[in-house]
Amino acid sequence: MEIDLNADLGEGFGPYRMGEDEAMLEVVSSANIACGFHAGDPVIMNRTVRLALARKIEVGAHVGFPDLLGFGRRPIQADPLELADYVLYQMGALAGIAKAAGHRVTHMSFHGALGNMAAASYELAEPLVRAVAEFDRDMIISVSTDTEIERAADRIGIRTANTFLADRAYDDRGALVSRKLDGAVIKDRAAVMARVQALLENGTITTITGNKLKVKVQSILLHGDTPGAVELARAVRGAIESAGGRVTPLSKLVR
Amino acid sequence: MEIDLNADLGEGFGPYRMGEDEAMLEVVSSANIACGFHAGDPVIMNRTVRLALARKIEVGAHVGFPDLLGFGRRPIQADPLELADYVLYQMGALAGIAKAAGHRVTHMSFHGALGNMAAASYELAEPLVRAVAEFDRDMIISVSTDTEIERAADRIGIRTANTFLADRAYDDRGALVSRKLDGAVIKDRAAVMARVQALLENGTITTITGNKLKVKVQSILLHGDTPGAVELARAVRGAIESAGGRVTPLSKLVR
Amino acid sequence: MEIDLNADLGEGFGPYRMGEDEAMLEVVSSANIACGFHAGDPVIMNRTVRLALARKIEVGAHVGFPDLLGFGRRPIQADPLELADYVLYQMGALAGIAKAAGHRVTHMSFHGALGNMAAASYELAEPLVRAVAEFDRDMIISVSTDTEIERAADRIGIRTANTFLADRAYDDRGALVSRKLDGAVIKDRAAVMARVQALLENGTITTITGNKLKVKVQSILLHGDTPGAVELARAVRGAIESAGGRVTPLSKLVR
Amino acid sequence: MEIDLNADLGEGFGPYRMGEDEAMLEVVSSANIACGFHAGDPVIMNRTVRLALARKIEVGAHVGFPDLLGFGRRPIQADPLELADYVLYQMGALAGIAKAAGHRVTHMSFHGALGNMAAASYELAEPLVRAVAEFDRDMIISVSTDTEIERAADRIGIRTANTFLADRAYDDRGALVSRKLDGAVIKDRAAVMARVQALLENGTITTITGNKLKVKVQSILLHGDTPGAVELARAVRGAIESAGGRVTPLSKLVR
Repeated sequence: MEIDLNADLGEGFGPYRMGEDEAMLEVVSSANIACGFHAGDPVIMNRTVRLALARKIEVGAHVGFPDLLGFGRRPIQADPLELADYVLYQMGALAGIAKAAGHRVTHMSFHGALGNMAAASYELAEPLVRAVAEFDRDMIISVSTDTEIERAADRIGIRTANTFLADRAYDDRGALVSRKLDGAVIKDRAAVMARVQALLENGTITTITGNKLKVKVQSILLHGDTPGAVELARAVRGAIESAGGRVTPLSKLVR
Repeated sequence: MEIDLNADLGEGFGPYRMGEDEAMLEVVSSANIACGFHAGDPVIMNRTVRLALARKIEVGAHVGFPDLLGFGRRPIQADPLELADYVLYQMGALAGIAKAAGHRVTHMSFHGALGNMAAASYELAEPLVRAVAEFDRDMIISVSTDTEIERAADRIGIRTANTFLADRAYDDRGALVSRKLDGAVIKDRAAVMARVQALLENGTITTITGNKLKVKVQSILLHGDTPGAVELARAVRGAIESAGGRVTPLSKLVR
Repeated sequence: MEIDLNADLGEGFGPYRMGEDEAMLEVVSSANIACGFHAGDPVIMNRTVRLALARKIEVGAHVGFPDLLGFGRRPIQADPLELADYVLYQMGALAGIAKAAGHRVTHMSFHGALGNMAAASYELAEPLVRAVAEFDRDMIISVSTDTEIERAADRIGIRTANTFLADRAYDDRGALVSRKLDGAVIKDRAAVMARVQALLENGTITTITGNKLKVKVQSILLHGDTPGAVELARAVRGAIESAGGRVTPLSKLVR
Repeated sequence: MEIDLNADLGEGFGPYRMGEDEAMLEVVSSANIACGFHAGDPVIMNRTVRLALARKIEVGAHVGFPDLLGFGRRPIQADPLELADYVLYQMGALAGIAKAAGHRVTHMSFHGALGNMAAASYELAEPLVRAVAEFDRDMIISVSTDTEIERAADRIGIRTANTFLADRAYDDRGALVSRKLDGAVIKDRAAVMARVQALLENGTITTITGNKLKVKVQSILLHGDTPGAVELARAVRGAIESAGGRVTPLSKLVR
């Protein structure tokens, strides 16, 4: 069994830090790097790319709304075609920094409110995914199961990686439960580990209503900005390896 | 005789417009596109790139300080290595947008205060030019003669295009006279045309002290945001063609 | 008959200009000044305040979303209490500039998407209006009739001025028709003038369905950024004065 | 002996935190609050003002360059009159938030590069200080001794408070040693405490060359964003009180 371990990194800005990027980069196989709109700046992007390269970690573009003040978590009703341009701008910026460093961007994901809105709306997802494909047909899009982003990617013919958020609740359709609802974020470490174990052993997740759901997952996403994030990441990696699995970057998993 | 005609375009932001991009794109052979820091935004960048592509105009990245409020004209004392990251970010962003549109970025130039400061300081020019070379060794850097940017490019081994600003005064060294000084900007249209004529016919510019200076120029830069800019651009193009010359994009001129 | 003539001014940013502020300030009796979030910057705010003061024009704070790229026209789903802090920040900034200039802020209005969202949601309008009242109980809030902003102001006990948008269609309830719908913006100058005449003579507006609606209006809002805006403003002022009316600033009209 | 204890607070932005504001507010007698340009945002400003009010701590406006990315520490060569408008905007914004909360702004200081540049240039200091005086003639400006800010304030006739930076080296003129030089920041806690003791007991500071300099100080500035800041602040307060002194806010000290 091979699976990718993934984290959102490079989420500082100027003098501000968020999360423990260096420690997380010792554990994951790929990193989603913020691209300066909801978080991140050119200096932090370059440093994160170079840290990743030195550890042979794959990098992805984590693109969001232009809303540093709201960390990209506030829905903005904007023209989908304009948002597609924002996506291109951010992916290009990271790709430029990566190219100069001798690295390359293998995957991408939509952050926060942009991701949630695109997951729920084909009308929004379609132009965003099309922009990604026009930029690089080999790009892998990190998606949650049964979302409009996944559907758009399938129709447009660009590869996706199904990503499991270990500390988030899922509903019976396999969709993420909104952060606004009770129980959406799983804070108990033992509970998170149990979910990872079930996924690794049986390929199932227990939904918020208590049902077991069979899922196909290529990647586990770990949050880097919560207390104890590094320890949890190490424990998840340990669990995968104890079970005889191998932590493998996305580009080697997704065909 | 072949020479490039160049203009700074895409300098609007959100609801704001600056200059007459569409009309200028009918006259020039290459366009410097603002990359979102001193001016420009992803939507305007994309529109300008697509307009250029449709007219077979080459596009370049016009990179500047992160200072929309000051239009990149205010010197900011920042770490040269951090500024190099800003340059990569901006070039990458435009390259991403261009790639998705089926176009490519062939040249770049430093805008406003960033350009002036790098022209005068090897310590600043060197890391900026190195970043450009690391991003794309085939990039052509638009320079003024006898600047530290040109020197850095020569040492690093990346191509440059000497650019003549038709409406700006030069000193006896061939350097631009600071905008703050009287006579730095030549507003009289006949005077601008006479300068272009002298350049085309004799390869000389008349300096602010009245001396004639032999110069080697591959490109004439026209400003797009001044009143009468389009008419002036048309007149310059007319003068080149009447003299039997050919307006030719940079990548076909610079080896 | 006394009525206020109002325009949204100071909507440039850094090097960018929008509308003809100086000419409009010769016609209106009060000005809504953008406060740096959706448009405007400290320099433009100060210049506009001083131009207004010299002409004895009253100034108001025109507050919006922090979205220069979208000119404050894109809905952002944010915490109402956080938005109330944004309102205070913007009103305070303008009040500070006005105070230093020897002027004072007499009224305020909510711009674009912030205004539309607050007009439709009491849950949003209430904390925004409360913030205004806590900042200055004498402030006059410019409102459209039958909105949640008006209702919140009435309950909180802060004065409002009913404002008629001469170039916008109204529905039978007296609410503005969304800009997205056909016919929402009235571009024909004669039609706009006819609407102003009917308002002045009969106190009525013709709704988009053709009904006549009796309205109570203290202020007519003119847009300053449309072609012909200044001429239209002069014509409206002329119509008021020909009908024996007097253009009077808000603070002298609203009790 | 009465002296003010002061700290720069509210220096987060959106999701980012800097320093331990709540703990520092238990120790100081006045707080300098960032106003959204180099750090801070409306929500953080409001929270910090209300925390200060609840503890009867006086608040001041900490104004800086519009450079969140560089935390206001990068010199920007801008028109002094435009910078004066930036100062008014920031002071007004904080005053607006304070007024709505039932608090008031009693003092102000210039942050980072803006402060350093104004300290060294009368041409810059004069319009900035004049803007402060035009905004509020009762405002107290926090200054370092023998700076152009102090000179401008004296000539314009606005009150100043001489502020001692406990963890920064001074030269023989009593001016701050540039952060770029070795020894400019004193990191050893015992050394900082010894400096505070000498100031309290003898009214002297030991300069970087080892000389003793007699100084008149109304306020000690503590940094809130360094490790151990809170413990150091408590120790300084303890030292003042052990010596029979009283920690007293600026407005009660400065006449």
